[in-house]
Amino acid sequence: MPITLDQLNAAPLAEAALLLDGLYEHSPWIAEQALKQRPFASLAALKHAMVRVLHEAGVEPQLALIRAHPELAGKAMVSQSLTAESTHEQTKAGLTHCTPEEFAHIQRLNADYNAKHGFPFILAVRGPRGTGLSKAEIIATFERRLHNPVDFERAECLRNIHRIAEIRLNDKFGFEPTLGNAVWDWHENLARHTDPGYAELGQLTVTYLTDAHRACAAQLQQQMLALGFDEAHIDAVGNVVGVYHAGPQPNAVRPELVEGLARASTSSARTDGSDSPATAKTLLTGSHYDTVRNGGKYDGRLGIFVPMACVQQLNQAGRRLPFAIEVVGFAEEEGQRYKATFLGSGALTGHFNPDWLDQQDADGITLRAAMQHAGLPATLDAIRALQRDPSKYLGFVEVHIEQGPVLNELDLPLGVVTSINASVRYLGEVIGMASHAGTTPMDRRRDAACAVAELALHAEQRAASDGDSVATVGMLQVPNGSINVVPGACQFSLDIRAPSDAQRDALAQDIVTQLQAICDRRGVRHTLEETMRAAAAPSAPAWQARWEAAVAALGVPLHRLPSGAGHDAMKLHELMPQAMLFVRGLNSGISHNPLESTTSDDMDLCVRAFAHLLEQLAAEHPN
Amino acid sequence: MPITLDQLNAAPLAEAALLLDGLYEHSPWIAEQALKQRPFASLAALKHAMVRVLHEAGVEPQLALIRAHPELAGKAMVSQSLTAESTHEQTKAGLTHCTPEEFAHIQRLNADYNAKHGFPFILAVRGPRGTGLSKAEIIATFERRLHNPVDFERAECLRNIHRIAEIRLNDKFGFEPTLGNAVWDWHENLARHTDPGYAELGQLTVTYLTDAHRACAAQLQQQMLALGFDEAHIDAVGNVVGVYHAGPQPNAVRPELVEGLARASTSSARTDGSDSPATAKTLLTGSHYDTVRNGGKYDGRLGIFVPMACVQQLNQAGRRLPFAIEVVGFAEEEGQRYKATFLGSGALTGHFNPDWLDQQDADGITLRAAMQHAGLPATLDAIRALQRDPSKYLGFVEVHIEQGPVLNELDLPLGVVTSINASVRYLGEVIGMASHAGTTPMDRRRDAACAVAELALHAEQRAASDGDSVATVGMLQVPNGSINVVPGACQFSLDIRAPSDAQRDALAQDIVTQLQAICDRRGVRHTLEETMRAAAAPSAPAWQARWEAAVAALGVPLHRLPSGAGHDAMKLHELMPQAMLFVRGLNSGISHNPLESTTSDDMDLCVRAFAHLLEQLAAEHPN
Repeated sequence: MPITLDQLNAAPLAEAALLLDGLYEHSPWIAEQALKQRPFASLAALKHAMVRVLHEAGVEPQLALIRAHPELAGKAMVSQSLTAESTHEQTKAGLTHCTPEEFAHIQRLNADYNAKHGFPFILAVRGPRGTGLSKAEIIATFERRLHNPVDFERAECLRNIHRIAEIRLNDKFGFEPTLGNAVWDWHENLARHTDPGYAELGQLTVTYLTDAHRACAAQLQQQMLALGFDEAHIDAVGNVVGVYHAGPQPNAVRPELVEGLARASTSSARTDGSDSPATAKTLLTGSHYDTVRNGGKYDGRLGIFVPMACVQQLNQAGRRLPFAIEVVGFAEEEGQRYKATFLGSGALTGHFNPDWLDQQDADGITLRAAMQHAGLPATLDAIRALQRDPSKYLGFVEVHIEQGPVLNELDLPLGVVTSINASVRYLGEVIGMASHAGTTPMDRRRDAACAVAELALHAEQRAASDGDSVATVGMLQVPNGSINVVPGACQFSLDIRAPSDAQRDALAQDIVTQLQAICDRRGVRHTLEETMRAAAAPSAPAWQARWEAAVAALGVPLHRLPSGAGHDAMKLHELMPQAMLFVRGLNSGISHNPLESTTSDDMDLCVRAFAHLLEQLAAEHPN
Repeated sequence: MPITLDQLNAAPLAEAALLLDGLYEHSPWIAEQALKQRPFASLAALKHAMVRVLHEAGVEPQLALIRAHPELAGKAMVSQSLTAESTHEQTKAGLTHCTPEEFAHIQRLNADYNAKHGFPFILAVRGPRGTGLSKAEIIATFERRLHNPVDFERAECLRNIHRIAEIRLNDKFGFEPTLGNAVWDWHENLARHTDPGYAELGQLTVTYLTDAHRACAAQLQQQMLALGFDEAHIDAVGNVVGVYHAGPQPNAVRPELVEGLARASTSSARTDGSDSPATAKTLLTGSHYDTVRNGGKYDGRLGIFVPMACVQQLNQAGRRLPFAIEVVGFAEEEGQRYKATFLGSGALTGHFNPDWLDQQDADGITLRAAMQHAGLPATLDAIRALQRDPSKYLGFVEVHIEQGPVLNELDLPLGVVTSINASVRYLGEVIGMASHAGTTPMDRRRDAACAVAELALHAEQRAASDGDSVATVGMLQVPNGSINVVPGACQFSLDIRAPSDAQRDALAQDIVTQLQAICDRRGVRHTLEETMRAAAAPSAPAWQARWEAAVAALGVPLHRLPSGAGHDAMKLHELMPQAMLFVRGLNSGISHNPLESTTSDDMDLCVRAFAHLLEQLAAEHPN
């Protein structure tokens, strides 16, 4: 018999603790302490309460918990469990039927891991979808995590322990993240398409207007129609545009859109249904379906599939909202095949550079030829016709995987974006004088590398004391450097981002001024070329507030954060109010990498948050 | 009528100033002020006095002097002079008969140079040998110096002005550096031999036992015999060994070895000549004749030719000293073809690694095969037989081009070495965690490059406050770095040198400890491999004192400095007392580079210093 949240909230403490028995190895105190915070509005709230209890307990209890897990050492362990999950859990994992070589390899990894970290390797072997990792995935993860710093790996073990507890809790409550599972599977299904040469490598690469790219567009279009969208077409730049029409509202308090959603703002819907769908405004949403080379499966695509899942729910319930929902799968955001980043969303804001049509890819194929090959009109008129009239839109919202470590470190599934950071990038070189490392006294050097070292540390320190700003020297090289030569030149890149244009400009100005001062003091010179500059896109307050209300309604602690990466919302920002919602990324939030990952549980929460935002809008905009 | 030093020293100030008229453009005050320091023991002393006067006058008079020189702009200038040297001087330079394209190029260089530096380009067009630079050399120098920092280039112009004055002074005094000219020409003559493939490029490369290398050995051997050495042979590792025997001393105060040498310690030679040459001890000297790839002409070879010039002088005078002089041209010091650095001098100290015989060069030729091809016995017995018995030697002295900027900056021709620095080298890597430069907050980064930046600056600061020590991060690279990725790894080299082993060890220990502290603080890890370690070779005090006396006797201000580079004397140090004398290098003392250069005037002083050291020894060791 599954437990219910009401049952847990109502039970005496000891009885409630019994209900949660077995979530954490030999550490029932975690659930017991969390239960003092009852009542919980959602399973997510309960989960996070336990995360906080362990976090605040400090390092020793955390290590004790990690060490309570059996080691992955030898055959006996393999036949039981990596992580002491139940037999049921174990059968979903892939560590059965190991060859003797694999056993020996795992034992060696285990010994090395223990020797380095001082605790056993913990992995939630049921994985992000709950259906189990393969043997190869488990071993690769072990190999990779062995090299992590010890403190990082301790935190990673705790995150895996919390993930195991999350799965156990779902089992206890008979909860399945069905919406999230569907969305997770849609990503897998779309990731079948990859550019020539990458399939053999098992890598995902979908660049603009390749066969794989067009297959993705066709599949998205078909899927939209199958899920209940009224229209779905591929536009003149390859965007997939699906529309779910507005409709008259029922003369009653609406049922909640999504089962399990906590209390939304209650409806104030009118009863007349007087506005026709044709005059209703539209909510615009979406993200991109192209990828970087050897990229992740969720970057962009999550922002298409989440609203698609909401439309599916609406359609299944036979419901219409007082506004239309337009979901766009943007064809191009990553600028991989052509240097035309944001081509897809830019077409909607009227920012298409005519010169782009003559730009060639690495094989010499122009953008125009690629468009024609894809059956697109490839004319400026057709592209310009895509520009949206903002008066017809309520605004733009975008869901995206975080692509950063913040939510993962906080063990939070969702985060509300405050602003897409402004950015500026430079490529530079300091030119000093190469000289003999043995014979040139310290006070007679013009060391180009030391000058750049000062710059890197200044940028780091200055950004760290500037709120949510960041500054990075990502490329750094002494060209043809020798062990016994004082560097005569040092090349570097500089990437600066801040929540507002003014903050970015002040930060960049300080760093560039400091570079000049460093060079003057050291008697060296420098070059500095600005290669990119993008304005900040602060979230529209009313729209950010809707996301915040949606997250709060799920019982998930609210965390606001800036977006350090650029997104399609940056472009739409030029035309209409926008706000974004981030979903936690596993593996430190790594992105542009096959390790990019998030769980179907997090996706489930995201779909429900999106649905809640729709309910809020419906309540605000009665037809 | 040439002026004499006695005449200058004796004349009233105004008259003496007239004698020196025209040395510096529109700046007679330089000579006038210097004359207040009369009497001068040598032309070198007078020259340096004028250098000091201008140095101490400060920047404004220096700029005025530089600007008093006509610009190298257009045909008119070309037909006159680059540097306003006399017509006689100009005819020796190569800027006549320029093509229109060359004129245009020079005018452009001139405009760019003036725009950047704010003063005209000054070059002593008669060059280091006094016979004139070629047109190509002048233009290449102009192009190169255009890019120097302004303050460096101001100093370089002053150095060229002093060189012009030096040549003018020689003309006034009817002085020709005949010994230095001969030694300079010997270098040119030996530099005809270069390894296959380098001749076409006009580059000097002489690596161990190549045809060019063997041609050098044969030429050195023949030249030694022609100059009056009693014996000269090529030994089992390819060293060229020339010996000038000891002999009975004349029953009188000896004439000075070299004309123009200031008063040496007077002789206390005995009259009996009882010690036979066979029982006399030997002074060992020399340096290497191999080169790095595309190297300079003077590195090593100067230390062979200078004592050869002294033996020539002795032989021409029919003189014998109470000790033999053994001049060795070491076959291998640079470790270019085989990793067997100091093979030549190491053979004399018994340090030949038997494994080296099986080492292969880039073409797969073993050292043994190369030796056999060169007609050498290639047996360990033959090589071990080269080991010297220190009881038969007085000690080892070595002359070498400085390979550093110190003497050039001080405008001093000679410097006495206090110690060959101890050294230790490392290759290392810091491993952090690569992450997105936009989405990773500053306080959650594990930036490998910033860690290495801290290391580089710490090493720089720590060495700068450690006397004559140096520390260098010469190689620095973020592998596959991207503008928008926080560096996950950073590779570096570390080269540390100090005057004593203890000082080196303390310095290295501090830097390595700091690296660990940096990594701990930043949550990153590192690898560090020691790739080389060499002990210090402090100069034997009595021998260093002899060099100091020799330099002082020339009227050259004494400057002591450590050797940051390794030299053959390091090896001989293990067997007998040693001390080195450095000769100024032009172009900031650059070495291992075709720009390596020194003047025949400096070489002349060096030959006379060496001769003075021989006289001191003769006085100390009467036969």
